[in-house]
Amino acid sequence: MYQLLKSHKTFEGNTIFCEHDSESTKTKMKFSAFLPREESQIDSAIIWLSGLTCTDENFITKAGAQRYLKGTNTMIICPDTSPRGLNLPGEDDSYDFGSGAGFYLNAKKAPFDNNYKMEDYIITDLVNILKDDFKVNKISICGHSMGGHGALILGLKNSELFESISAFSPIVNPINCPWGQKAFAGYLGEDKSEWSHFDACELLKSGFKSKNSILIDQGTSDEFLEEQLLTNNFKNIATEVEQDFQLNFREGYDHSYYFISSFIEDHIKHHLNYL
Amino acid sequence: MYQLLKSHKTFEGNTIFCEHDSESTKTKMKFSAFLPREESQIDSAIIWLSGLTCTDENFITKAGAQRYLKGTNTMIICPDTSPRGLNLPGEDDSYDFGSGAGFYLNAKKAPFDNNYKMEDYIITDLVNILKDDFKVNKISICGHSMGGHGALILGLKNSELFESISAFSPIVNPINCPWGQKAFAGYLGEDKSEWSHFDACELLKSGFKSKNSILIDQGTSDEFLEEQLLTNNFKNIATEVEQDFQLNFREGYDHSYYFISSFIEDHIKHHLNYL
Repeated sequence: MYQLLKSHKTFEGNTIFCEHDSESTKTKMKFSAFLPREESQIDSAIIWLSGLTCTDENFITKAGAQRYLKGTNTMIICPDTSPRGLNLPGEDDSYDFGSGAGFYLNAKKAPFDNNYKMEDYIITDLVNILKDDFKVNKISICGHSMGGHGALILGLKNSELFESISAFSPIVNPINCPWGQKAFAGYLGEDKSEWSHFDACELLKSGFKSKNSILIDQGTSDEFLEEQLLTNNFKNIATEVEQDFQLNFREGYDHSYYFISSFIEDHIKHHLNYL
Repeated sequence: MYQLLKSHKTFEGNTIFCEHDSESTKTKMKFSAFLPREESQIDSAIIWLSGLTCTDENFITKAGAQRYLKGTNTMIICPDTSPRGLNLPGEDDSYDFGSGAGFYLNAKKAPFDNNYKMEDYIITDLVNILKDDFKVNKISICGHSMGGHGALILGLKNSELFESISAFSPIVNPINCPWGQKAFAGYLGEDKSEWSHFDACELLKSGFKSKNSILIDQGTSDEFLEEQLLTNNFKNIATEVEQDFQLNFREGYDHSYYFISSFIEDHIKHHLNYL
């Protein structure tokens, strides 16, 4: 059960902001959503996972996704990127770890292991809200940057649950980039055998697959492409293991929501094919 | 001449953020813009004026307007809503006066009369940038709330300069609402004969007209409709003086950017008719 905080009529539907108690994080968690029709007419959902520093608000205010869902029976739901307000040591020291940087994994290292259970939060709490409260029967998953990583790992590990996966500018191989290495060391500890459970490239190597084609858009002027995102590692491994995918390098686009807004229509259509 | 601060490729064009020295405000001023094509191909512009508390960023990040300008020769430019950083007494005390609340008029009262020259700023500085730097030969004007007021008064007073006018949720009759009365008393003083030069309803009564139909969209669930916006006063006076207009009351929509994003396509199309 969730509590409705705000609602704004948008493209004949409603953009809503909500809060609920999460069993996984043991905190209140917020999400935003867009329901293109009356709640009783909604039958499927796209989960959007945001990137570093984002809250439940960035995507729903900036991406312009509502327009492309107008008139469909598919909602989009956008959770926050970490638990909030815990005041754990080190939680608020940097933009790429702790608050706003949950990395969609279950932390195993103190002091984060009690609350930073973002994998469980998405797969159980948020999915249960979709199924029980919104009566959704099909779900797809997508995201941006850290959230693109989240969409890939959660989508691959739960291929029965998610119909389709897509990502903008995803961190495809976190065990081999500074953002991922910092987060995984902090949340999981130094035992790197644990890390591969949360790395899209490693999951593909281990045999995890999505039943449908994975759509990825990546800007060529993205400042993080070379050091953090490592998109070609995904391309090489997905080709090797025969995971169907479509990877579009977009000339001149960067890492921002201006890029996302330019191609979100393609991603919505991709998911609507399977929902 | 302006200085380019940031540029983000968007819908095959560029969303840009700029700064320039304003002769009218005697400060640096910021604006954002979207150029759907190469600068050399741009031949017309829409000026967007934002509402209370906004900067040059709100519209360009939230309204989703870029999509509807894609492939055209028309740019949109979004100036800030007041001078900034002056540290004048009383400038930062409230959301509806001073910083972020310039009301698109020329202040006559100290300490604001030196810098709060937003009418001059739009009509001379910004228009000169459009004509001299961007080589634009036709301009239309629109805005939201306080910016809807700005679009109406500047559009009516400069009917040769602006091809068309539109507004979302405009303050149509500021001399008769609390926002307007507070701002006009603070910027213009207590002599109410001065106030009518900055009130759309009063300008219509005095014979000012737009050469083309004025488009207005207004949400029926707008919390400010009854007390501040007074939309029907515009309807009555425009009908009386035979100013062509189209006023759409939109059932259930509020005062937010979710409303604007839902109908900005209609406003862009309205202006493209005349540009």
